[in-house]
Amino acid sequence: MKSISESKARLDGEEKVTGRAVYTDDIRLPGMLHAKLLRSPYPHARLVGLNVSRAIRLPGVAAVLTRDDFAGLNPFYGFSVKDQPVVALDKVRYAGDVVAAVAAVDEDTAEEAASLIEVEYEQLPAVFTVKEALVEGAPLLHENIKQKHLPKYGRGCTGFFHEGTNICFHFRYERGDVEEAFESCDHVFEDIFTFPRAQHCSLEPHVSVAYFESGGLTVWTSTQSPFVVRQELSRIFQIRLNKVRVVVPCVGAGYGGKHSAKFEPLAAALSQKTGRPVKLSLSMEESFKTVTQHSATIKMKTGVKKDGTLVARQSEVLLNTGAYAEAGPLVIEKAGYRAHGPYRIPHVKSDAFAVYTNTVPAGPFRGFGGTQVAFAYESQMDMIAEKLGMDPLEIRLKNVLNKGEEFAPGDTPIDSDLKEALKLAAKEIGWHEKGRSPYRGKGISCALKDGGGINKPSNALVKITEDGSIVLSFGTVEVGQGINTAMAQIVANEMDMPFENILVAPLDTTSTPYDQGTLASAGIAVTGPAVQRAAQDVVRQILEIAGMVLGLDPATLRFGEGKVHYGENQSLPLRDVMIRHFGGTGGEIVGTGFFKVSRNNDAPLGYPCPFWEVGIGGADVVVDPETGEVKILKYISVTDAGKMIHPNHCRGQDEGAAMFGIGHTLFESMIFRDGQLMNPNLIEYRLPNFRDLPDHFESRILEGGSGPGPYGAKGLGEGGILPVASAVTNAVYNAVGVRIKEIPLYPERVLKSLSLKND
Amino acid sequence: MKSISESKARLDGEEKVTGRAVYTDDIRLPGMLHAKLLRSPYPHARLVGLNVSRAIRLPGVAAVLTRDDFAGLNPFYGFSVKDQPVVALDKVRYAGDVVAAVAAVDEDTAEEAASLIEVEYEQLPAVFTVKEALVEGAPLLHENIKQKHLPKYGRGCTGFFHEGTNICFHFRYERGDVEEAFESCDHVFEDIFTFPRAQHCSLEPHVSVAYFESGGLTVWTSTQSPFVVRQELSRIFQIRLNKVRVVVPCVGAGYGGKHSAKFEPLAAALSQKTGRPVKLSLSMEESFKTVTQHSATIKMKTGVKKDGTLVARQSEVLLNTGAYAEAGPLVIEKAGYRAHGPYRIPHVKSDAFAVYTNTVPAGPFRGFGGTQVAFAYESQMDMIAEKLGMDPLEIRLKNVLNKGEEFAPGDTPIDSDLKEALKLAAKEIGWHEKGRSPYRGKGISCALKDGGGINKPSNALVKITEDGSIVLSFGTVEVGQGINTAMAQIVANEMDMPFENILVAPLDTTSTPYDQGTLASAGIAVTGPAVQRAAQDVVRQILEIAGMVLGLDPATLRFGEGKVHYGENQSLPLRDVMIRHFGGTGGEIVGTGFFKVSRNNDAPLGYPCPFWEVGIGGADVVVDPETGEVKILKYISVTDAGKMIHPNHCRGQDEGAAMFGIGHTLFESMIFRDGQLMNPNLIEYRLPNFRDLPDHFESRILEGGSGPGPYGAKGLGEGGILPVASAVTNAVYNAVGVRIKEIPLYPERVLKSLSLKND
Repeated sequence: MKSISESKARLDGEEKVTGRAVYTDDIRLPGMLHAKLLRSPYPHARLVGLNVSRAIRLPGVAAVLTRDDFAGLNPFYGFSVKDQPVVALDKVRYAGDVVAAVAAVDEDTAEEAASLIEVEYEQLPAVFTVKEALVEGAPLLHENIKQKHLPKYGRGCTGFFHEGTNICFHFRYERGDVEEAFESCDHVFEDIFTFPRAQHCSLEPHVSVAYFESGGLTVWTSTQSPFVVRQELSRIFQIRLNKVRVVVPCVGAGYGGKHSAKFEPLAAALSQKTGRPVKLSLSMEESFKTVTQHSATIKMKTGVKKDGTLVARQSEVLLNTGAYAEAGPLVIEKAGYRAHGPYRIPHVKSDAFAVYTNTVPAGPFRGFGGTQVAFAYESQMDMIAEKLGMDPLEIRLKNVLNKGEEFAPGDTPIDSDLKEALKLAAKEIGWHEKGRSPYRGKGISCALKDGGGINKPSNALVKITEDGSIVLSFGTVEVGQGINTAMAQIVANEMDMPFENILVAPLDTTSTPYDQGTLASAGIAVTGPAVQRAAQDVVRQILEIAGMVLGLDPATLRFGEGKVHYGENQSLPLRDVMIRHFGGTGGEIVGTGFFKVSRNNDAPLGYPCPFWEVGIGGADVVVDPETGEVKILKYISVTDAGKMIHPNHCRGQDEGAAMFGIGHTLFESMIFRDGQLMNPNLIEYRLPNFRDLPDHFESRILEGGSGPGPYGAKGLGEGGILPVASAVTNAVYNAVGVRIKEIPLYPERVLKSLSLKND
Repeated sequence: MKSISESKARLDGEEKVTGRAVYTDDIRLPGMLHAKLLRSPYPHARLVGLNVSRAIRLPGVAAVLTRDDFAGLNPFYGFSVKDQPVVALDKVRYAGDVVAAVAAVDEDTAEEAASLIEVEYEQLPAVFTVKEALVEGAPLLHENIKQKHLPKYGRGCTGFFHEGTNICFHFRYERGDVEEAFESCDHVFEDIFTFPRAQHCSLEPHVSVAYFESGGLTVWTSTQSPFVVRQELSRIFQIRLNKVRVVVPCVGAGYGGKHSAKFEPLAAALSQKTGRPVKLSLSMEESFKTVTQHSATIKMKTGVKKDGTLVARQSEVLLNTGAYAEAGPLVIEKAGYRAHGPYRIPHVKSDAFAVYTNTVPAGPFRGFGGTQVAFAYESQMDMIAEKLGMDPLEIRLKNVLNKGEEFAPGDTPIDSDLKEALKLAAKEIGWHEKGRSPYRGKGISCALKDGGGINKPSNALVKITEDGSIVLSFGTVEVGQGINTAMAQIVANEMDMPFENILVAPLDTTSTPYDQGTLASAGIAVTGPAVQRAAQDVVRQILEIAGMVLGLDPATLRFGEGKVHYGENQSLPLRDVMIRHFGGTGGEIVGTGFFKVSRNNDAPLGYPCPFWEVGIGGADVVVDPETGEVKILKYISVTDAGKMIHPNHCRGQDEGAAMFGIGHTLFESMIFRDGQLMNPNLIEYRLPNFRDLPDHFESRILEGGSGPGPYGAKGLGEGGILPVASAVTNAVYNAVGVRIKEIPLYPERVLKSLSLKND
């Protein structure tokens, strides 16, 4: 295979390192206005009065957007439930909720004008934690949400809305009979685990430029999912999908935080009102107040035989989804579905709840609910092993699903060798030498998530000219993961053409064919086959044309190295084939490709997952007994790429995911006090930095070859985050004998646990 | 049929009438420079020295581009022959030839800097007319042209280059034996006709913005043929075709003057030199000095039987192609091939020469060589009729080709009923009442040209979303002719969807599939079928998907009115089909279409023409015997659209073509004195204005249904220009008995003829 398994120079590398890359914030249009937002200082309040007269009189102000602009309209958006208004209507639901927006000639003027808006609030009782929100009689965030519809699940799954409560969505997955099974177990474990709320911290905050003109809307935006944004805008502004053009310049990362509509509707509304292009660039603090990961409380009850055989698991997963649903219902579904982990457990029941609170909305985040539950089940696994006197590796190897075994009836069989991965991680971490140094310990963890999205219809277009130039077009967004480069490699291989000949077309919903965007590690695995098929379609057409030109049966021809080969060692260069067929001015051959997974009502979620994304971690840590500080000396991340198209990018993705895990394991947590976010910036919100890197940090990527993508490729970039927290807390337990069920591992938290143990 | 034969509101109408339409000159990029040209004041001179030091020192100047920037390179371009350098190298060849170019912060600075460039010229003897150019020992314009290659003709055609002469290209078409045939004729007529040089006068002059960055080149340009421009840029700058992105904003008309590269290479060279975007906007005067129509001298020898049967015709066509070949070789080929007109003439020989002179280059122009020869053969036809005592209508009806009869063996049979058209024109003009008023007369004329280009491989893409939004993409440029609207109508009809649902995607060579562009009236007839097929491909896929969704054989389904119909009166809306197939987030179905005419070596030009474009004119004029002024009282233009997709646009195209004819018949001519263009502006170059409109001016469009386009459509927009000059001069003869063989009909020219007659 050509170009495959080679770490090609990334297509966007030069423009990015030289600063020439155009991000949305670089878009400047004639007459463009700049927008600023007025946000609620209160976590929950009724909007009694709004007076914008001082703001609108400020010179340079073009428009102030408030609820009055939406009288009689239905300005709600949201990926799962349409519960978030473009600006607050009757009330605000979190400190930071958008009350109004100003468009002015520059940002300073817009900001000053926003400060001149007079708002009368009537504060309401608020709930900040899931616990508070679920108390009987707790104040409700949403009294009356429209546009809710239950997903069409397959076998074993149910979804519920609980009207009149703060439960945004309740997902249940059930098989076997857990109640009865617990009775038969030798041991039953029941623990509660607590997971923090992390922020995506994309280096580029949310930025959108919108321009309504001639009845059409063009939006340049930093998004992972331009077609999803297009759909929201079409619905909100009641214009046909082809009247909305979403263009995606360079994107400075997403990690889930730029999935689905964010401030595109607001920027568009301001443009509609002013008739001019409007740019809205959030600050980092504002991005913190836009969307976050879900914090979680997980109650996990697991029944085992005394030989370590897992028999039954009942999970209650509570995710704090903040003030608006966002993708909460989907995240909770995935968290619930994944809660029994990569293990053979006959009796399973998960009840998972996304719960509204008066905090920043939580949405998609790398790991997508799988991270939180993996922390729970892989911590508990060590507790079970401890209790049974088993080795943590041994109990995992005993129970982990084999390659080819079903995770759930009807779903895709496990497509990676988890035992091999576990053994590799253990070997790399020096598992059998653990416990030899004081305060030093080793931990292991194994997790998985269903990858690729449950339903992602993907298209691709490839066209070729007589000089062998190739243009490739598809709708998965390059957010830094290197998808454009990898897709070009696939085309190069399929067409046996030089990688350098391939250009990936800019992403623009008008010209790019549909794709749901960058999500669920689906790029290579789901859009990849569409790209591959489009390339194959072009080759088919080249041979068809060559057949006409040469007067030969196309089936006897082969395209390779830019030539059509025929007869005995004869060949005709592509240029000649095309010029002979099209004439002297040349032409193009256009190919299309499509891929999607088909619905299967037997699959619990209604669709079998395209692939299983796996994450196996091994950690070697040392705990400072004086300070409580946990230092990761060595971390090994193991995953299975199926086939690595671009090995360096694969490792980069997996390392990045593991670093995310290290972040929330050791440092990261959004701190709310009375509903106020206390650390919405990169000073007070602690990201891991270079000094926090493990001394030895390595990603080992298997190539099991069983993915649905080209050459057996699977997706990756999320697996690596899943096992980190449990691998590290397991190692901490191994080091100092304390079981910490709440992360991050702040030194004071570790120290407190140590002192409790020593008490 | 839905949407067809309806004069829909044009898709670009609102943005154009409100001034919101974005033309190339409206493009503004950060850091953009503005270019101005330094042009030669001499028609022919050696470039001895160039000193740019004063120019480059002027504050605000970023770069001066001269021949020194192309040392060792091959900066020649040209549609047919690569003979035109981006800037003058060794010498200048016409007054207006580009010597150097300046890029500066604004146009004024650039202009001032251009004036500071010191040029030392050594004047050379020059030739301005074809006659001067063909004199033995005449000064040569091009001593040594590279990249010439002879076209691959079919039966009867030959091409020649005559090295060491000013003949740019010599085309010969021959069938039968004219020499022998003339011997057998009862009468032989030999006349010389002279046709002026018109200018395209697009309201928008040539404008280009070029930006070289990261090894790629993006050009926004007012062009008719973005893919042809892409090819030139790729070749000149030695970068792959997909590294050149040509974007076409709104175009303010072309008429042939914006076909192939004009100043795109120069703007690109300036951008390459400066590393910044560069805009070059020509003035109207500069457009006059960029490209023009070909003036012509046509010697026509025709032998007839006494009953009026045409037997033999020998033509010598001399076109003044100016200083560079441009599309001259193609224009001369068409002029030569069309010189025997729409008549049954067994013996034909044409020798047609495009001749270099030290004047502005001549290139494609509405009618493409057909206009000039039609003036000759349709003037002579009346002279023959006069001599034989026949009615001009009668002699035409006797000799004109029948529908289905061959124009030339191997070429497409005549696909319009020319007799019907002639009779209609005669009837409308009141043919049988002619000659009843003094100084008033009627004339008739019938001409044709091969339409659609000889080889135009066209692609189209159509995609549809679940709300029935359709995006259509193709590479024929909307230059005002209404092609976008008509193509949308075709898609609407093929898909049985509302016209309003269709968006035509912006034209951008990266995303738009290949097409040669707007030329040869080929849009509907040649690209139309590609569009139609792409729409049909989408319908096919809709039915295929619906078959899967419904569990039915797609062959039993029908798509109509946005629904899939099945069983007995059952239907499923498109949205349901797509959502059921793609899932809740929707998706797109992408279809492709391709069309081209196949090479046929029997056809004289190597390809049979896609269709015949016909133009039949009837004129009723009055001549003022005092002033010589010719007033057209009534003009009837008859053509055959095959099928009118958009009747108003069809009429508009035909009326516009006829108005062009009225222009060169009565007023228009570019006047050169010693090689200096004397009237390069719309004051001194006289376009017809509203007062010049015939009192009665009507286009009658037949729908013969025999075109290759959708529903039998042919192209139109050029036929109407062909017969005007001869219809009017024939009418003048009928009015006052003078035969004027040189146009335009300046009053003093008419008066002189009158006085000569009366002498």
